[in-house]
Amino acid sequence: MPEFLHLLPPDEALKTWLTALPQPVEFNCERLDTAQALNRVLGEDITAPEALPPFPRSTVDGYAVHAASTFGATPSLPAYLDLQGEVRMGQEATLALEPAQAALIHTGGMIPDGADAVVMIEDTQRAHEGQIEVLKAVASGENILQAGEDVKAGQLVLPAGKRLRPQEIGGLMALGVTSVLVRKRPRVGIISTGDELISPDQQLEPGQVRDVNSYSLAALINRLGGEVSRQLLLPDDRQQLQPALKLAQAEDDVIVVTAGSSVSERDLTADTIAALGKPGVLVHGIQIKPGKPTILASAEGTPVLGLPGNPVSAFIIAGIFLPPLLQLLLGGAQNTPQAVVAASLTVNIASLAGREDFVPVRLQQEGEAWLAEPVYGRSNLIFTLVRADGLIRIPPAATGLDKGAQVMVHLF
Amino acid sequence: MPEFLHLLPPDEALKTWLTALPQPVEFNCERLDTAQALNRVLGEDITAPEALPPFPRSTVDGYAVHAASTFGATPSLPAYLDLQGEVRMGQEATLALEPAQAALIHTGGMIPDGADAVVMIEDTQRAHEGQIEVLKAVASGENILQAGEDVKAGQLVLPAGKRLRPQEIGGLMALGVTSVLVRKRPRVGIISTGDELISPDQQLEPGQVRDVNSYSLAALINRLGGEVSRQLLLPDDRQQLQPALKLAQAEDDVIVVTAGSSVSERDLTADTIAALGKPGVLVHGIQIKPGKPTILASAEGTPVLGLPGNPVSAFIIAGIFLPPLLQLLLGGAQNTPQAVVAASLTVNIASLAGREDFVPVRLQQEGEAWLAEPVYGRSNLIFTLVRADGLIRIPPAATGLDKGAQVMVHLF
Repeated sequence: MPEFLHLLPPDEALKTWLTALPQPVEFNCERLDTAQALNRVLGEDITAPEALPPFPRSTVDGYAVHAASTFGATPSLPAYLDLQGEVRMGQEATLALEPAQAALIHTGGMIPDGADAVVMIEDTQRAHEGQIEVLKAVASGENILQAGEDVKAGQLVLPAGKRLRPQEIGGLMALGVTSVLVRKRPRVGIISTGDELISPDQQLEPGQVRDVNSYSLAALINRLGGEVSRQLLLPDDRQQLQPALKLAQAEDDVIVVTAGSSVSERDLTADTIAALGKPGVLVHGIQIKPGKPTILASAEGTPVLGLPGNPVSAFIIAGIFLPPLLQLLLGGAQNTPQAVVAASLTVNIASLAGREDFVPVRLQQEGEAWLAEPVYGRSNLIFTLVRADGLIRIPPAATGLDKGAQVMVHLF
Repeated sequence: MPEFLHLLPPDEALKTWLTALPQPVEFNCERLDTAQALNRVLGEDITAPEALPPFPRSTVDGYAVHAASTFGATPSLPAYLDLQGEVRMGQEATLALEPAQAALIHTGGMIPDGADAVVMIEDTQRAHEGQIEVLKAVASGENILQAGEDVKAGQLVLPAGKRLRPQEIGGLMALGVTSVLVRKRPRVGIISTGDELISPDQQLEPGQVRDVNSYSLAALINRLGGEVSRQLLLPDDRQQLQPALKLAQAEDDVIVVTAGSSVSERDLTADTIAALGKPGVLVHGIQIKPGKPTILASAEGTPVLGLPGNPVSAFIIAGIFLPPLLQLLLGGAQNTPQAVVAASLTVNIASLAGREDFVPVRLQQEGEAWLAEPVYGRSNLIFTLVRADGLIRIPPAATGLDKGAQVMVHLF
């Protein structure tokens, strides 16, 4: 039987795969309403069409004043200012203030001409009709948000490649940018092979099992910002697999093939992928558990991921290799911080040195802390992953982890 | 001016709010194709309609055998077995094995009658035509996944209230459950008030600013599993605000009001919320920065969140109070682990004791570690949040954090 003679460490395998892809990546873009662009990646630099705020605004409720007219003011020796009126919200401040004059203003209101500071309302008292007492001096610029203090007109506010979170959507709206060019979601074709597989809505006959992988992978791909372009179920038959792969290669940005892990199926998958073009199969076999028989390939510019057929391996491997691939195809930042939950391991876990192990764990709260309990189960059991909250990684240098060890859990 | 005399700590404010809501929550449900139900919350218990796997399967490529016929086998003294044929993938294993017989089988293939173990192919050799040599003994059950080992028929596999991740979608498909009852997404009405606000697609006049909050909040609510049912922009006018709130109360599950933070607007918001019904405004003023003037209310069973008008406060407060509310309304688990990025603070941060501070930070990589650099900016600046990767929380007991302190960054 063919053995995997050259098992690459996962990091090296990933690097080999990504560097074999055509670079720089050519992006296809589409224009969307900004309100519909959450989680999409910008396809253009956004510069501010105008300053934000467009005019100086008060940051407090109070009185717009000449700061110099308040110098030395204290509760025992207040400054007396003539009240000239009120700046109405949403309207231009049409009055102009002279020294020793004040105008009532609300938070967000437009600073009138002449004023260079705002006295907070709690530092004032109404004196005679038409006059206020200022009990505390303000400096020039105090309690004012200057025009352009958030963003200057013409400033680059969001670079191409930025993924749009809720605050970016808000920021674009603040600038009146109501539509944006975003990068199209990479099209990912999923092909599941196996003579034993049937579609979940079909009647099960003895010896058959329902396809799991194409559905859990499709959900994962959607979550990662990809678009599932096809979801095919094929028997282990080169006559059917080869043309299906060719068509996916012509139409998709990424191909994911899940195959049975039997020798014959594995060979068939690797051979048909290799026949798609240069450079072909780059990695076949990785120093990882689960997922050793993984195939990483590139065929005339199309990345191909060949996954083991069993659901746990397929899902874990896809979760490791698809995020950086899709990030590359979308042109986003590669080194993004990964949020984890720190937890304490409930049992000893053994591991082979030289191999990277990923162990599904369930998290249980203990006071303020979390306990990570490995969810054991063969890699054929999809419900192993249903019972798990996340994965812990045992690095290649380790020969295991001890009970009580602090581990970082990557939530699914 | 009205002061907030009773500032509640955030935890206590949240508890006061949630416990005032009608409990147990009544859930409305809808039926969806399982493939479309990613991130939705189950509205029914799912029990397995059949065992998984439905028949015993081989976990390796090899030969199905009677384990007893291999006892004592070694490379120097192999057991000789008669080859009876092959179990084809996806087909019923129709042959029945007697002792001293073997059948070729592939990973995932159905174990034939009589066999109780599988010898791995690498532990065998082809001998004469129609015979194999077994070089290593196997125990009964070895290399077999028993029927029902993943899930037994009738077993509760997913309880109502479970949020569906990619692996749950896969697990449901494995059982042939191609449609599920899920809880409807809570309808959230967003009402932005302010005489100065205009819609982002309108022409800006002096004194006006574009509405930011309803868009960043809508994006956040979508991400949290809510459905934005309305997005209204109203002037500070009780005649318009009151009927709009009444209608939202009748039709929505949650109301979010963002108001200018000027005294008059704040009063107007609190008064109109109070007029919606009992128990009314539960919390007005929280020991938190930013976001002190937050309003938490419940009116005849409808939760109402009154947010400060400035975008940073509104977004941070919504990010603290909406997730547990929506989780309650969807019936999901309340104590879910929060993934964070551990980082080292680049500067000292001061904070008032007794107040909970949330500080936006930007993460920068330094070798394997992350540095958290506060993004300073007034809470009026939406681009403060655009520049930030997440928030750090300074607990009420602390009077600040020192440069170099380890902090936990909650990514946005």
